[in-house]
Amino acid sequence: MKRIQIRATFLDEVSTDIPHHNWGYEEWDQDFQAMKAIGIDTVVMIRCGLEKFLAYPSELLIKERGAYRPPVDWVEMFLELAGKYGMRFFFGTYVGQRWWGDKRIDFATECALDKRIVAEAWERYGNYPAFQGWYLSKEIATYHAEIVDEFVELGQYCKKISGNLPILISPGMLGRKAWYNNEPEAHDLDFEKHLRDWDMIMGKISGTVDIVAFQDGHLIYEELPQALQINKALADKHGIECWTNSESFDRDMPFRFPPIKWEKLLLKLRAAQSVGVERAITFEFSHFMSPNSMWQSAHGLYKRYQEYLAGKFD
Amino acid sequence: MKRIQIRATFLDEVSTDIPHHNWGYEEWDQDFQAMKAIGIDTVVMIRCGLEKFLAYPSELLIKERGAYRPPVDWVEMFLELAGKYGMRFFFGTYVGQRWWGDKRIDFATECALDKRIVAEAWERYGNYPAFQGWYLSKEIATYHAEIVDEFVELGQYCKKISGNLPILISPGMLGRKAWYNNEPEAHDLDFEKHLRDWDMIMGKISGTVDIVAFQDGHLIYEELPQALQINKALADKHGIECWTNSESFDRDMPFRFPPIKWEKLLLKLRAAQSVGVERAITFEFSHFMSPNSMWQSAHGLYKRYQEYLAGKFD
Amino acid sequence: MKRIQIRATFLDEVSTDIPHHNWGYEEWDQDFQAMKAIGIDTVVMIRCGLEKFLAYPSELLIKERGAYRPPVDWVEMFLELAGKYGMRFFFGTYVGQRWWGDKRIDFATECALDKRIVAEAWERYGNYPAFQGWYLSKEIATYHAEIVDEFVELGQYCKKISGNLPILISPGMLGRKAWYNNEPEAHDLDFEKHLRDWDMIMGKISGTVDIVAFQDGHLIYEELPQALQINKALADKHGIECWTNSESFDRDMPFRFPPIKWEKLLLKLRAAQSVGVERAITFEFSHFMSPNSMWQSAHGLYKRYQEYLAGKFD
Repeated sequence: MKRIQIRATFLDEVSTDIPHHNWGYEEWDQDFQAMKAIGIDTVVMIRCGLEKFLAYPSELLIKERGAYRPPVDWVEMFLELAGKYGMRFFFGTYVGQRWWGDKRIDFATECALDKRIVAEAWERYGNYPAFQGWYLSKEIATYHAEIVDEFVELGQYCKKISGNLPILISPGMLGRKAWYNNEPEAHDLDFEKHLRDWDMIMGKISGTVDIVAFQDGHLIYEELPQALQINKALADKHGIECWTNSESFDRDMPFRFPPIKWEKLLLKLRAAQSVGVERAITFEFSHFMSPNSMWQSAHGLYKRYQEYLAGKFD
Repeated sequence: MKRIQIRATFLDEVSTDIPHHNWGYEEWDQDFQAMKAIGIDTVVMIRCGLEKFLAYPSELLIKERGAYRPPVDWVEMFLELAGKYGMRFFFGTYVGQRWWGDKRIDFATECALDKRIVAEAWERYGNYPAFQGWYLSKEIATYHAEIVDEFVELGQYCKKISGNLPILISPGMLGRKAWYNNEPEAHDLDFEKHLRDWDMIMGKISGTVDIVAFQDGHLIYEELPQALQINKALADKHGIECWTNSESFDRDMPFRFPPIKWEKLLLKLRAAQSVGVERAITFEFSHFMSPNSMWQSAHGLYKRYQEYLAGKFD
Repeated sequence: MKRIQIRATFLDEVSTDIPHHNWGYEEWDQDFQAMKAIGIDTVVMIRCGLEKFLAYPSELLIKERGAYRPPVDWVEMFLELAGKYGMRFFFGTYVGQRWWGDKRIDFATECALDKRIVAEAWERYGNYPAFQGWYLSKEIATYHAEIVDEFVELGQYCKKISGNLPILISPGMLGRKAWYNNEPEAHDLDFEKHLRDWDMIMGKISGTVDIVAFQDGHLIYEELPQALQINKALADKHGIECWTNSESFDRDMPFRFPPIKWEKLLLKLRAAQSVGVERAITFEFSHFMSPNSMWQSAHGLYKRYQEYLAGKFD
């Protein structure tokens, strides 16, 4: 029987809201082994920097933005480990502001900077065979003119300098759990607006963005099948590959965030499979599905997922 | 020396606010062993379903409510394990709405459905020797006419179909921590109202509900002895058995919920013992007291409780 | 190369907001070993009691305040273990109110009580060789007349009865994260007011308080170097020893609190070193840096810190 599989994971080393494992090379090597063992072939570094914290020693950001020189070059480490385990590595672009709802952001300046960082990174790491794609790290759930423009401009630039490597984005959906608001009065997804917005967005980014992987955790479970159907149909229409970002953390719990209940992950994977989606990425393996996670319930999730691969839940 | 003991635990597999362990049969077997080792003889499944998530494949709820078919039949698993370890299993009734403060709930319809689910469950599992009781899963802290009526109607129905198996409820108390509100201005328990309400409630449920186990975590510690005294006296008056639900999670911490400090659990157990309560149930063993818990501080609590049994804290 | 080191840690056994490990003597012994292995020579018990919960069986508080007799005498245990591992133990004074912003507090009465508790403790434990200092447990971030007065009065009393043992305080700084408020509109440190307030405070406590260790987690990282410079200069001016309280928990995460990212701790330690601070205390080793912590990410932090000591990050 055909089963949709989690073939990719984010790497969230410069994180916004996920507590840090404090792993060194050895622990990361072990975790890449665990990924490999369940069939993950692609790792996506979610961002190369967030404000002043960096995933590699970017001389540009250290000099121009006063960024902190990181104690480790995680980009180098991830590229080596991806190479060692035969995986593809996607490089996530820079996030200049944690709160980019901030009205004072000048997106043109940001985009210009983001391009120079991408150039610097390609200069430093482009020769690694595992460097196989780009991830545009800004997350939107609805139409946002400046960010959509940046997807095109920054994306085209990435493609140009790298010999057309594929580009991934992972948007949200504006459902009841989008802003961690799960009281009954929180609003559900406006399907019509979602369709209209993403038809427009995909129309613009088609030809630049190769893969779109919507986060599947913003919606109540009842809405997921219809939303995934819309996403898949739109992606097909615009010639974009459609993955699902099947989140492995639980958005229904009173603290942010523990690993998800296996039943829920299974439900979400099957919903994606039922509309023809063939690949899932997850946010993210190391904290929420890994036998090495700080959360012991992730160890259970790993075992259950292995049983799934072995056909136990067919 | 006589020491009050934790002889029962809830099983919170379809949970509202406790992150899931993602255990399979093997891990659960191990956890039942750990329960048995400290003298637990009764396991109480807190609910057989919550909205669309189910603890067993209820064809009724799958068909009529669009519930999700669970990947595992936990009721069957728990009944087998309870049988294996010589424990009693209490079946928790269905929870149709997570937020049942919602004014739009039609309790008559809910109660009618709940009875049909109970019938379905008894039909499926009534032959397991470990099936030894019922748990009415709605939690109230004060008088609530419709829910008290349901306790009687649903409870009588459970007794009738099952040859009079015992029935348990586990109410709250409207103290300072009842709604996770531990600022100084939050109100303390209104002892008079508590006594008045529960005298009325117990008057109505007497003859149906056999055991009442108030949650002991809603109050500041200073109020607990007096509240427990009231509860025990009322239960005696109305011919109901009085346990204490000695919660093993900590309501005083900034995230919900870690395992409790042993000192606090000991304090609460002793407060119950001092008014003549002889049995405690806990919410719940597997996350908050178990050597298998995802929270390592639960492993410590297990060791301290073992020392307590051995007389170390006498 | 000279590297600033963490030479001290708080012990947070009677805690306000850190979930309890539920360790017994054996587990604590193991943790003291782990402290010793990275060069910690001083342990500071953060408080001897909080409202009705106590770190030792204070007959005074049990009788006069209805405090609970603790199941274990942690003060005795810590003094024994500190002695065993050749460490100094600082005794933290009593905290009568969890919320001491409360206007109704009568500080004179509190201070009188605090002195009697200190006397009781010295009577009980003063003969332990490891009893080597006092920690005044009230935390202020700005000028607070009554508490500064108490620092002097209580501090002088501690010195008098104990043959002049050294006294430590660990204040906050009123920055963006001081009240767990990390939205962009939260206010940054007012450097001028901070300087003015602490010049005045140190003027008053000089000659009583021997060591001041500001908490380094209330500020955004950008502000830390300037704030530390002010603190060090003021301490030098007033003849007070200046440590840094380099917090090992992460204030940037959505739940309170996981272990900090190693990169951030390193950044903070280096900021302190750059202004001439030579010793760090941390809040606190056992939960956030220990190989025995309930948080597995603390195990990683311990390994990284060991690599730091070995020169890996020079």
